[in-house]
Order: sequence, then structure tokens, then C-alpha cells
Amino acid sequence: MGLSCANDVATPLLDQVKSPDDLKRMGQDELCHLARELRGETLRIVSETGGHLGSSLGVIELTVALHAVFDAPRDTIIWDVSHQCYPHKILTGRRDRMRSLRKRNGLSGFTRRMESAFDPFGAAHSSTSISAGLGFATARDLKGEDGHVVCIIGDGAMSAGMAFEAMNNAGKSGRRLIVILNDNDMSISASTGALPGHLAAIRDRAQTLAGNLFQNFGFDYRGPVDGHDLDALIPLLRELHTNKTGPVLLHVVTRKGAGYDPAEQAADKYHGVNPFDVTTGVQVKVPAKAPSYTKVFADALINEAKADDRIVAITAAMASGTGIDRFEAAFPDRTFDVGIAEQHAVTFAAGLAASGMKPFCAIYSTFLQRAYDQIIHDVALQQLPVRFAIDRAGLVGADGPTHAGAFDIMYLAHLPGFTVMAASDEAELVHMVATAAGHDEGPIAFRYPRGEGTGVTMPAKGEMLPIGRGRIIELGTQVALLSFGTRLADCLKARRLLALEGISVTVVDARFAKPLDTALIADLVDNHAMLVTVEEGATGGFGALVLHHLANRGMLDGRCAVRTLTLPDTFIAQASSDDMYEEAKLTARHIAAAARNGIASSRVHGDIRRSGRAGQQELTTRLHRAEDR
Amino acid sequence: MGLSCANDVATPLLDQVKSPDDLKRMGQDELCHLARELRGETLRIVSETGGHLGSSLGVIELTVALHAVFDAPRDTIIWDVSHQCYPHKILTGRRDRMRSLRKRNGLSGFTRRMESAFDPFGAAHSSTSISAGLGFATARDLKGEDGHVVCIIGDGAMSAGMAFEAMNNAGKSGRRLIVILNDNDMSISASTGALPGHLAAIRDRAQTLAGNLFQNFGFDYRGPVDGHDLDALIPLLRELHTNKTGPVLLHVVTRKGAGYDPAEQAADKYHGVNPFDVTTGVQVKVPAKAPSYTKVFADALINEAKADDRIVAITAAMASGTGIDRFEAAFPDRTFDVGIAEQHAVTFAAGLAASGMKPFCAIYSTFLQRAYDQIIHDVALQQLPVRFAIDRAGLVGADGPTHAGAFDIMYLAHLPGFTVMAASDEAELVHMVATAAGHDEGPIAFRYPRGEGTGVTMPAKGEMLPIGRGRIIELGTQVALLSFGTRLADCLKARRLLALEGISVTVVDARFAKPLDTALIADLVDNHAMLVTVEEGATGGFGALVLHHLANRGMLDGRCAVRTLTLPDTFIAQASSDDMYEEAKLTARHIAAAARNGIASSRVHGDIRRSGRAGQQELTTRLHRAEDR
Repeated sequence: MGLSCANDVATPLLDQVKSPDDLKRMGQDELCHLARELRGETLRIVSETGGHLGSSLGVIELTVALHAVFDAPRDTIIWDVSHQCYPHKILTGRRDRMRSLRKRNGLSGFTRRMESAFDPFGAAHSSTSISAGLGFATARDLKGEDGHVVCIIGDGAMSAGMAFEAMNNAGKSGRRLIVILNDNDMSISASTGALPGHLAAIRDRAQTLAGNLFQNFGFDYRGPVDGHDLDALIPLLRELHTNKTGPVLLHVVTRKGAGYDPAEQAADKYHGVNPFDVTTGVQVKVPAKAPSYTKVFADALINEAKADDRIVAITAAMASGTGIDRFEAAFPDRTFDVGIAEQHAVTFAAGLAASGMKPFCAIYSTFLQRAYDQIIHDVALQQLPVRFAIDRAGLVGADGPTHAGAFDIMYLAHLPGFTVMAASDEAELVHMVATAAGHDEGPIAFRYPRGEGTGVTMPAKGEMLPIGRGRIIELGTQVALLSFGTRLADCLKARRLLALEGISVTVVDARFAKPLDTALIADLVDNHAMLVTVEEGATGGFGALVLHHLANRGMLDGRCAVRTLTLPDTFIAQASSDDMYEEAKLTARHIAAAARNGIASSRVHGDIRRSGRAGQQELTTRLHRAEDR
Repeated sequence: MGLSCANDVATPLLDQVKSPDDLKRMGQDELCHLARELRGETLRIVSETGGHLGSSLGVIELTVALHAVFDAPRDTIIWDVSHQCYPHKILTGRRDRMRSLRKRNGLSGFTRRMESAFDPFGAAHSSTSISAGLGFATARDLKGEDGHVVCIIGDGAMSAGMAFEAMNNAGKSGRRLIVILNDNDMSISASTGALPGHLAAIRDRAQTLAGNLFQNFGFDYRGPVDGHDLDALIPLLRELHTNKTGPVLLHVVTRKGAGYDPAEQAADKYHGVNPFDVTTGVQVKVPAKAPSYTKVFADALINEAKADDRIVAITAAMASGTGIDRFEAAFPDRTFDVGIAEQHAVTFAAGLAASGMKPFCAIYSTFLQRAYDQIIHDVALQQLPVRFAIDRAGLVGADGPTHAGAFDIMYLAHLPGFTVMAASDEAELVHMVATAAGHDEGPIAFRYPRGEGTGVTMPAKGEMLPIGRGRIIELGTQVALLSFGTRLADCLKARRLLALEGISVTVVDARFAKPLDTALIADLVDNHAMLVTVEEGATGGFGALVLHHLANRGMLDGRCAVRTLTLPDTFIAQASSDDMYEEAKLTARHIAAAARNGIASSRVHGDIRRSGRAGQQELTTRLHRAEDR
């Protein structure tokens, strides 16, 4: 397959494009030149900003062809996942803001309704485009309007069940809907499952293969066509534009990273990139001060798996993101990449657990939302010991609110029989992997953030933690900070800030949101004037469980004021993780302020020194116990 | 297609069956007779107990054949959904307990791991069997064990995405796994989407159709075979049992309700039945004291839709269960049954909403769990005004914990921008439908229970409720009961109980969990010694939001004790709804006890009469305002 357009440095044609209308005036040759310029521009921009490179390079010609033929925003163009939307953004009036991509107050790395009329439906999670597109097409028909609906979906995204649910409905609906299958034989890593083989068979013998998958679902199948050949692509799209028929699927074959050698050679490495040198392809590597949580998790799991051959690992198309690629290198037969299929991942794990295996499901917090019913119905209801390794917990930075791990504490910790942990640092994560490995009594989850650890001394091996027991980190007398997760470091900083004001602070690492350490919480409430819970998650999670417990034991009687610090009730826009936590008011400064203001406004202020010696002694004893462990 | 076995009354063969081993000794003729007896027995049992009839009658011969050929529990037999497991239960040592089906302390209406070794994986929600089966098959291979894994899945269940995710993985795995497609061309109602057409095409010309769906996914396809013809079925199963190859799909064609005329004639009406007269097919009809919430919802939605043609309704294969069949009769072009495909349903609705329509997604609480990520990512993040009509909220009776609507308040009310309501009676439901229809600012949900309403006077038409405002029902001075949902009736009973003890109780219908009526809550806290929240849901929901609010406003300072009554942290076993609420400690008696004990143990007990006149006056004013509305 030949690229009809490579990449250019000068951009005389692109400079004329203020909106997609400007493409309508260009001839085929000019469009080809425009594509060369667009590829060069995309490459230059992402080399400066970082971001999702490979997918965008793969759809340069397709993007030009779509905007040359269709009439957005009157025609509705929906990019699935929308990793690949950078050239679309450049052509739809956002070129001058592309350097702000994925930055605070900048352009989103994904399509976003609020950003542009050319983004009719936002995305970031995969496989939603056909469902949304059928919604647009149905509304159009009900309103008696015209206009096309075009959904561009990758072959990787096709592995998720909801794409099939959508095809099953769209194919039967008879509605005018154009689905473009962008087939590059890749998810972030190589595609998995039976589908890639079927697509290869279609590519090889489309004319002779009666009844391919899409035809079986009622789609009119067109293709395959070389997605980098505008001379082939544009006439096909024009025909779809002109002949308004029912649901049609156009099979476009592309190469991820097309036109840029380093990205073509290692498509997974150039899926998401740091800023890089365009000539050499070398990405800027920020020196790490500590290993990433992801790597610590993977290495800890490998260690546990060496000692226990019942441990198996499951990833849903995120082998490198979750560190399961490391596990796979050590235990290829015990590793399962199920594709973008979180629902299947969890119930598959439940089946493994029911057979006596110890499955670790490593899924980002935000993607685990896809498997919520399976977690409840197949895992929790049957009390099966599936282990959930929840990476990207809390705010995640440049990927923004679609990727935030905001809700997992809430949506897991109220399920009967679940054990829910959060690591406060990477050493704790090692212990939690060991704890999960050893815990056979029911489902157990542990969460940890994106990025690098805190640089603590690492244990030689993980130890089972006592279930439902927190640990006291620092003792004080007035305020207790009860932290669940990696805000612990900010709690310790807040303690130092408050010490300057003469406020004495206890800091506790809760470790468990469920079961709660009710004895420890009672100690804290009995011996402090104020208790502040801190977590990197929405309301309804750890703090809510603490409040429910205190309320129903009659402990919210004024003996100790309580505040719950959580993520706010908004979706926090992309920025650096630090800036996002600033916005969320979850930094040391905010924690200190909550404690300070709480004490000031509390009716129990006069009681602030009432912490009894007995209580203090008990706390000290517990601290020593915790240290002994 | 002929039934080789009808139904018998005498059961000489069945009487000999203590376990499936006993089938191994029977010849083909005896098995045929056994099937006749089994059908009669199933029919007689369900005519007495009620339950899922049609699906069980459809798999009588298949069940006999499976247990005659395979060696459960060494071979793993997984029934998808498991509506159809009654004959399986009868043959696997549970015949003598079948009259306890779906009753308190009785047999579950579904497969259940804790009930029998012959139920290796429980079910109730659809489409999980292939994922779980692949887990069992993988564990078997890793452990070097033998044994078959057989999953029996209906064509309706095949429309859910997770079945495709599973096939995509199973087909490629090469593992020995037998999937039996039980194709009766039905979900609960008729199957929808493109799949039924494809299955019909396969049935009609299996030999000539190259590349059917299952082959495309890598399965060895066998069939179609008449699922009521043991002479055809058993040899095919024996072959699969003997020849241990890779993933194979056996296409079995059955009739829902087979062998029982009334059920064959109206398969949807005999899917789930009340006790009935076997001869006439007439079901016992318990006279209703009030219309069901489902019917009230449907009629209210029809009313709204008459005035606003942007209103459309979506159901996921539960047209009759949700009342959308009534809506469809009035507005066929504005009704969408997407099949068992909740993920698609929600994102399809998001697409409709993005195009200016007013989609009402009518999905049971428990099934909406399937679409959690779509609710967050496609609806909430984009603040699209999708309306969620959440039927079967709270405990549901005979269907037990798999169908309980326990978690929706929790999993929805912490999502930014969501509005979450619960109807306290059927008149309120009418207003909430109107409120949802009129609310264009973002997503909105309203929940209501299974079963009949309370018999209140119904409004002529629905009125928009003021968003985030509760209503005072009764005024008192000491205890405030703040109810979210239909426990309101029990709160009023509790008020009468407490009045006998001289405790004066205010009762409030919160209406909204989000946004909270913070002014009203402040009034309640300032003017009572005790506040009790009551909801038909797990911890983390309404009560948690009230607690978070009070904590962070510094209002948990002893001025007013707080208790949160929720479902307990266990899965409540099947019983009547009333018995389940008794078990959950959410009846009037329990509410009264919580208030009484809370006051007794509260440090503010001495303060119990401190409610100031000013506060009382303000409350009274608000009450009058509420009455004016």
C-alpha cells in the first residue's frame, strides 16, 4: 500500500484553511498536497506538545477526504475514542491553539462538545461512536432533517461489546448511517481476539468472502480501500455522500503512525508520546525520581506469582499501561489480554476465581466503570476472590476528566463483602499486592495513582496487611488527619503547616476504606477535637463510610468535629496533576485550611485540649503495635 | 419441528433420578419418556409456585440430553441468565425442594453457587456465561485438568455486547469450550436488531451460508438442530463430548414454552408467571389496590409525549416490564427497543439528547449497572439531558438479590451535574416524569419501586417540581424523618408509633438526593434533636450526601444527632418485598426504633425540647409554601 502523500514543512495550502469549507474548493492534487502539509504540521505540533501521535498520523488522508467531501458541522462526524482527532482539529479552526493541546486551559486531546461545533460528540473511552451516531441519525430522521452521520471507529475499538450492540441495532434500523472502519490491525498494542483474523480474511479476499461480520449485522459493506490513497478514498466517500442509502460500513485500511518512520516501526511506543525530536524520533525522557506505581505493581505481582502458580493476570488492551506487559514477559501462559472488553475481563476473572485461580484484573479506575455490573453480579454477589488492581486512581493530568479515576472508591466500597484498599506510597502498594494475593475470602481491590512513587525505601518482599487496619503515622492531640491513598504526603505537609500555628496533628494512613478500622476511628474521635478524612475520589467513598459509621454509632455528638475532603462535585479540566489537585482543593494547604477553619467554627473549640491522657496512651500503644508489624 | 416428547403426569422414571448419574443408565426411549415426565413436573411446579415458565419448558429435552451425555459437576454446565434452570434443578437433586422456589429460605429461581455443586456459576443478568465459561476452561487447562465446559445461551442474550467480547476471546483462544446457542427467536419479548435475521438465515440455509457470525469469531459451527428432538440432539452432544477440539458452537433451535399450548401461543406472557391453572392456562391474578408504578410511569410519559414530540422512549429488551410497550402502542416511531444492550441504550440516548431530543431511558436499577461508564462518560461528562426512568428501585421480592435495585442512588448521585429523584408514591412519580421532561439542563434520574402504588389520588397532570426542594409532610418538634423514596409511608407509620411514646416527629419527603435541599436540611437540624435519613438503597447514597453536607458545613456539632437508615451491607436473600425490608430493618418499627434509640443514646438528649419557636415558625411557613405548590 503506497502513501500518496508524505509530510511537508512549508504549509501554503494549510495556511488557507480556516474551515473545512476551504477544502471544498481544492482539486484532488491540492488535497494531496494539503495532506502532506497536514501530516508535517501534526508531527511538528505533537513533537512539541506530546500526545497521541500514531493514531492521528494514521488518519491524515482520511481526515482530509472526509472534510473535502462531507459538510461538517451540518454533517455529523464522530471520531471514536478521538485519539486521532488532531488533524481534524487543525482543519476545523483550531490550528492556532494546537500548541495548547492537553494543557491547562488549552485544547482537549479529545473531541469535546464544548470546544467546537465540529465536535458533535465527545469521546475518550472507546467504542461509543456507533451508538451515538445512531442517536444522531435517529433524531435527524424524526425531525425530518437531512445531513449525514459518519462514525470513524478503529478495529481495536470494535472488540468492545458496545460496538456490537450498536451494530446490531444500526444494521437493522435501516437508517442512513456511515460507519468507517479504520483498520490498522492495532489497539494501543496489537489487537487481540478472533476479530483481527476475520478482518485479515476480509482484507485478503473481500470479493469472495460471502457474509462477513458487518454484512451479518445488516450493513452494506464497502471496501477494503487504502486509507492513505486519496485517489481511491475520495470517490468512495463521494458515492456515500451522494447515494443516501441505509447503514453502510466502509472498510479503510491504514497504518498507525503512517508517514513517520519511527512511529510506523514501533506503533505502540508512538501511540502516546512525550515531546520528541522529529528527525531522530527520540522522545524527551523526564528523569524519574522513583519508579512508577505501575512498574512497582507489576514487579510485585511477578514476585507473588513466582511463589503461587494460581496467580494469573488480565488486562483489557492496556498491557503496557498497566505493567501487565512485564508480567507477560515472565508468565506468558498466565497473562490474558482480552482486548477492549472490560466486561468480559471481569466475568472471565470471576470464572477463573470460581475454579480456584487467583486472577488479578489490572484495569484503570475510569475503564473499570465499564464492568460495574459484572463486578456486582458476577464477583460481589458470589463473593469470588477476584483481585482488582486499579491504576490511574485519582486525577491523571493531561488526559483530563474523561480519564480521571474519581469514582472507584464510591462505586466499590458499598458493595457487600468487598475489601477496598488504597496505597499511600509505592512500598504500601507492594504490601497490598501481597495482601490481595493472600486474601481468598472475597473480592479485593487496591488503587494507586498514575505516575511515579514517592521514593520511599522499598521492602524486600510484600507482607500481608491485617485486613481493615489502618496505621498511625504521626501522633498529635488536636486534629486527626485520616488519609486514604497518596494524599498522605500532603497530610504530613499539612501537619507541619499546622504545627507552626501551634495545632497538634495526628496523621493516619487508613489503608482500608472497607472494612473500616472502627477501633482506630473511635480512638481518633475520642482523642481529637477534629477529624478530617482525605481521599482522591468523589464524595460517597471513604469519607462517606466514616460518616455513616460515626452517625450510626452515635459518635457525631459534638465530641469531635468531622470534615470530609474529596474531589469536588465537578469534572476537573485537564492540567498537570498538581494543578488539578490544586483546583480540587486537595493539597497540603487546603487540608491545613480545612482543619484550621473547622476548629475555628466548631462549637467544640473550647474543648480543643480535652484529649485525655488515657486516650493518648491508647493511641501510643496502637502506634507501637503498628510499628511492630 | 416436532416434539418428540410431550408432558406426562405420572413420573415413574423421574422418581428414579436422584442425580444426573441416573440418566446415564437410561436408553434413548427412556430418556424420551423422562423428558415427558420432566415437562409435566416443571409445569405442575410452576403452576403452583409461579416463576419463569417459558424458558424452562423450552429446554426440557436439552436439559435431559446434557445430563445424559455430560458428567456434571465434573463437567461444568453454565446456564446463561438461568431463567431456564428449573428442569436442571429437578434433575440435580433439588426436586423435593422445588415448591420452595423463589420463596424465603427456598430454592433460588436462578442458578446459585451456594445452593448446589451443580451450579458452578450463578446468573440472573444475561450474557455472562461465555465469559465465565472461558474462565473455567482456562483454569482447567492451566491446572492440567480434564472436563468439559458447556455454556447454554439464548439468542436474546447474544445481543448483549459482553457475549461478543467473550466470543471474540473464546474463538481465538483455541480452548475446548462448548457454547450451545438456544435459539428460540425471543428475548422476553421478540428479539430485536439484526441478529435475529442472521440467525434465521443460518437456520434456513446453514449448509450454504459460508462464514456465519460464529465462524467469523473462530468457532466451529454445528447445527442447526431441533432442540426438542432427543434422537438428533443426543448424538450431536455425544460427538462433542468425545471429540475434544477447540471452541465449538452448537446451534439448537427451540420453542419458548414448548409442549404447553398457552405458553407457546403467547411466549412473552408466559415468560414469568403467577401461579396458574394448568388446564386453562389462566394465571392467578391478585387484585391490585392501586395501579403499578410501571403503569403510572408509562401513562405519565405518554401524556407528556402528546405535548412534546421531542420525547422518545428507550428500553433494553424490557418493553413490558418497564411499561414501554404501552408507550410504543401510542408512539411506535418514537419507541426504541435496543435488545439486551444497556450500554448502547444509554449512549444512543446521549446521541439523541445531543441532537435536541428528550430521550427517556427506562431501565431497571439493577440492569442500569451495565451502562455505568456510558452514564459517566457519554452523559454526565457532556451534561446531556438524558432522562433515566429507574424501575425496580429497592428490594424486589422473589427475584432476590441479583435483581435488587440497591446501588443506583449511590452510583448516580455523586456524578457532577446529575439530578436524582425518588418518588414517594405514584402521584409523585407523575410529577417526576413531568419534571424530567421539562429539565433540559443536564441528566436527570427518577427511581420508583416494583409493584403497585399506594392508592393516592392521582393528579390530572404532572407538574414540574422545583429542582432540589423537598416537601414537609408532617410537622413535629423532636425528631425529623427525612425520607427519600417510598419508605415515606413507613416513616408516617413510625411517626404514629413514636407519638404514642410522646415523641413528636416531623416527616419530610426529600424528593431529591441531588441537589440536596440544603435550606430545608438546615431547618431540620436547627429545630430537632435528631435527624434520621431513610432510603431504599445501599450506604453511600442519599444519607451519605446529607452527612457530607452537614459535616462540611460544620453542622455535625452535636446540635442534632443524625442516623442514616439504608439497606444493610449484605445481599438480602429472596422473600416477599415486605419480608426483605423486615430483614433490611427498614420498616416503620425499625425507623421508630432508630429514632428512639438515637435520642436515648444521644448526648443532646437533655436538649430534646430545645426546638425554638422561631425555627418552628419557619418550618410552618415552609410547609404552607409546599402546600401552595
